[in-house]
Amino acid sequence: MPQLGTEIDATLQRAAQLAGEYLAAHHGHEVPVARAVPPAELTKRLGLALPQQGRPLSELITDMQQVLEYSVRTGHPRFFNQLFGGFDPAAILGEWITALVNTSMYTYEAAPVATLMEVELIRRMNRMVGFERGEGVFAPGGSNSNLMAALAARHRAFPHAKQSGHRADDKPVFFLSEEAHYSVLRAGAIMGMGLDAAVEVACDPQGRMRPDALAAAIDRALADGRTPFMVVATAGSTVAGAFDPIDAIAEVTEPHDIWLHVDASLGGSVMFSERHRQLMRGVPRAHSVTWNPHKMMGVPLSCSATLMREPGSLRATNAMDADYLFHGKSDACYDLGDLSLQCGRRVDAIKLWFSWQAHGHDGFAQRVDHFFEMSAAFRAELEARDGFELVREPQSTNVCFRYVPPQLRALAGEARLEAVGACTTRVRDLLTQQGNFLINYATLDGAPAYRMALLNAETSESDTHALLDEIEALSADA
Amino acid sequence: MPQLGTEIDATLQRAAQLAGEYLAAHHGHEVPVARAVPPAELTKRLGLALPQQGRPLSELITDMQQVLEYSVRTGHPRFFNQLFGGFDPAAILGEWITALVNTSMYTYEAAPVATLMEVELIRRMNRMVGFERGEGVFAPGGSNSNLMAALAARHRAFPHAKQSGHRADDKPVFFLSEEAHYSVLRAGAIMGMGLDAAVEVACDPQGRMRPDALAAAIDRALADGRTPFMVVATAGSTVAGAFDPIDAIAEVTEPHDIWLHVDASLGGSVMFSERHRQLMRGVPRAHSVTWNPHKMMGVPLSCSATLMREPGSLRATNAMDADYLFHGKSDACYDLGDLSLQCGRRVDAIKLWFSWQAHGHDGFAQRVDHFFEMSAAFRAELEARDGFELVREPQSTNVCFRYVPPQLRALAGEARLEAVGACTTRVRDLLTQQGNFLINYATLDGAPAYRMALLNAETSESDTHALLDEIEALSADA
Repeated sequence: MPQLGTEIDATLQRAAQLAGEYLAAHHGHEVPVARAVPPAELTKRLGLALPQQGRPLSELITDMQQVLEYSVRTGHPRFFNQLFGGFDPAAILGEWITALVNTSMYTYEAAPVATLMEVELIRRMNRMVGFERGEGVFAPGGSNSNLMAALAARHRAFPHAKQSGHRADDKPVFFLSEEAHYSVLRAGAIMGMGLDAAVEVACDPQGRMRPDALAAAIDRALADGRTPFMVVATAGSTVAGAFDPIDAIAEVTEPHDIWLHVDASLGGSVMFSERHRQLMRGVPRAHSVTWNPHKMMGVPLSCSATLMREPGSLRATNAMDADYLFHGKSDACYDLGDLSLQCGRRVDAIKLWFSWQAHGHDGFAQRVDHFFEMSAAFRAELEARDGFELVREPQSTNVCFRYVPPQLRALAGEARLEAVGACTTRVRDLLTQQGNFLINYATLDGAPAYRMALLNAETSESDTHALLDEIEALSADA
Repeated sequence: MPQLGTEIDATLQRAAQLAGEYLAAHHGHEVPVARAVPPAELTKRLGLALPQQGRPLSELITDMQQVLEYSVRTGHPRFFNQLFGGFDPAAILGEWITALVNTSMYTYEAAPVATLMEVELIRRMNRMVGFERGEGVFAPGGSNSNLMAALAARHRAFPHAKQSGHRADDKPVFFLSEEAHYSVLRAGAIMGMGLDAAVEVACDPQGRMRPDALAAAIDRALADGRTPFMVVATAGSTVAGAFDPIDAIAEVTEPHDIWLHVDASLGGSVMFSERHRQLMRGVPRAHSVTWNPHKMMGVPLSCSATLMREPGSLRATNAMDADYLFHGKSDACYDLGDLSLQCGRRVDAIKLWFSWQAHGHDGFAQRVDHFFEMSAAFRAELEARDGFELVREPQSTNVCFRYVPPQLRALAGEARLEAVGACTTRVRDLLTQQGNFLINYATLDGAPAYRMALLNAETSESDTHALLDEIEALSADA
């Protein structure tokens, strides 16, 4: 289907116009967050069939309008559902350029500009976490970054495994908090150790790993003849937004010489903030860090950095030295492919570099501080209203809470928890159906609770208050 | 950095203009493929530093121009370096929309449109390979898809491994051709079996796995007390573009009930072509297939489908049932997250869906046929010229060759091979420095050879002939 230059030009111009309108529409709340249309009905409305013959490029503008119409508006100030939110025009521009340039991150030769941008970004992020000599690479998400860290940890403890696999006497075991992300557990399954190789360590009431429980768990594992090779501390847990105490955890891991990985997928961005970076105190003692700029920094998915304190860790673990691709030139340190678990790798650096140009370090710092202020204000509002209960003392930008409507306030104990939990999921379903707000829930301490994620700088107090009003109203009959 | 709507509009409009100019510039050969600037020099020219304070959005247009100026033009008709090429305006439009929508592929709730598009694409691709009841999911590249297939194969053979890891008596072993992609080897290392768990099977002179050698290798492994759990056939090998004989391989694997995976990262797209799909004859007998639309179909990186013949394979292998995300509703079959190794997952479906609208099935079929015709014509041209030697009989769209300049034609045997190989890498370096062509090389049968990848529909015979002219000219003194 060769297209004429003029048709291409006109279509891209029209797309840019629509993009501008789409981004502007969020500001005035003129549009809902989502239109909850069930799959069968939406399939009918959209007409998704793949045609036998091609259609003119210009016609696809209509399809674009449909996609924008029926997709969830994750940039809407009332979207609280995921650990990302808002729109960043500079990062969107970066993504548009990425699509044009369309290259792959294995060699400097094929991706000179994107490689240098990634190197610069990794260097800066490493410096921010205190890895002065570090190395790193972008990965397609936090799960993949956590897997890469686990592989590096294994390679250090069981260097024979890369070539000859695990031996019966390896008995690897690693530790994570009971509120850590499931991708850390799954890494054990992928790596052939099984889910049983993961020991979940108890948390304090705020959802932070207890260093004393970790120490005891390590001692038990050693007594059982197992080999602890990694501890994963979480900096910004998925539900509660809690930060494990890295310094205290390092006190436990260092005497045993255990690899310490910090899953800061959510929380890494607090390093921008002079006020809040103390949440990650001790992170320079870690061996590796996962940090996802696509969360708190607001660049489009996905953008996840795998950072390593010691240079050489990733290359030693992952290099396969494929001769058809890597030609071992003097600039080979700029061939990032051998650091990665991917071969062809999408460029995720350009969008982050553009975003960094627009915000600057200071802009990101203000952004992070602002999210914490929003979280504190939201917490205060919950306390000011009857019936709202914090489920956890908020640790960062997430606030977990329940609402006890008047008709349930006489209940106590288990019965109360169960009724309030059931009310939470029913009301959350109604909210989703209405589409004016999107907020997620998770089971915490035995029952569902709302998880408010405050990660859009354009969200105002009137947005969060309107959510609480609506929860109150819907809970009256739920 | 709050930006005004008008500034956003103006910047996106300008970006769309530049995009149109960028795409048009390739047609006339007015621009080089690449400007080979070494890392230190390019860093200086670009000024990549990350600022303390943000810059106005409109200023970033200058940065965009720099990125376009110094990036390798992978869409240029004289870019032959990677297994992708050309530009697809419809797919670029899809990527632009993806950046705007910015969502994640774990739940239907968060990504209704993109999920339905992915489901439709996977259904169609499954039907094309003959998996009538199949399931599947997109992954961030062929390496990841191959890993997912290997994990599913392991889960079938060693169902205890997910929970409790490998047992000493598992002794897993898998088989791939000696010309298979390195990601298949690495999967064994990731999975804790080590590189030793992979047995490389000999190929015929065209680079296709020999079924008799496979049968013998399986028998040897069984005699050694090992458990063969997977055979990986390659459909479109990375260097030679060879297709392993799937039907004959299935004859070997089926009596042993071994999982058969087909790595059709490059070759899957031949299923569009009535003329060439016989290269994958027998693929419905496979258990899983990797197929990368970002290669022969020309959509931007990355777009890779992991296809499974039996529904349930991916979910059983990968599901972690994270309660905070997956709420077990009736539409849960549209929550693709539990099929994947990722949690947050970038949307790769929209670009492919848009590309499919523009090309149609017939357009893709023509495209594939055209690449094969280009390959045949290029091969004929090599034979018509003195000194050019095919290294392999071309099997698909790749053509591997060497050029023996007049001054080396008197040499014979090892000395000749060595001199010609050295000449190949020297000339290739010169070509890369000049930047008018980009073509890769790889070691084949003991010495470097050029690997011509013909995957841009806008490449003409004058482009390929000009490359050969230039190789002849540069080899005269090399």
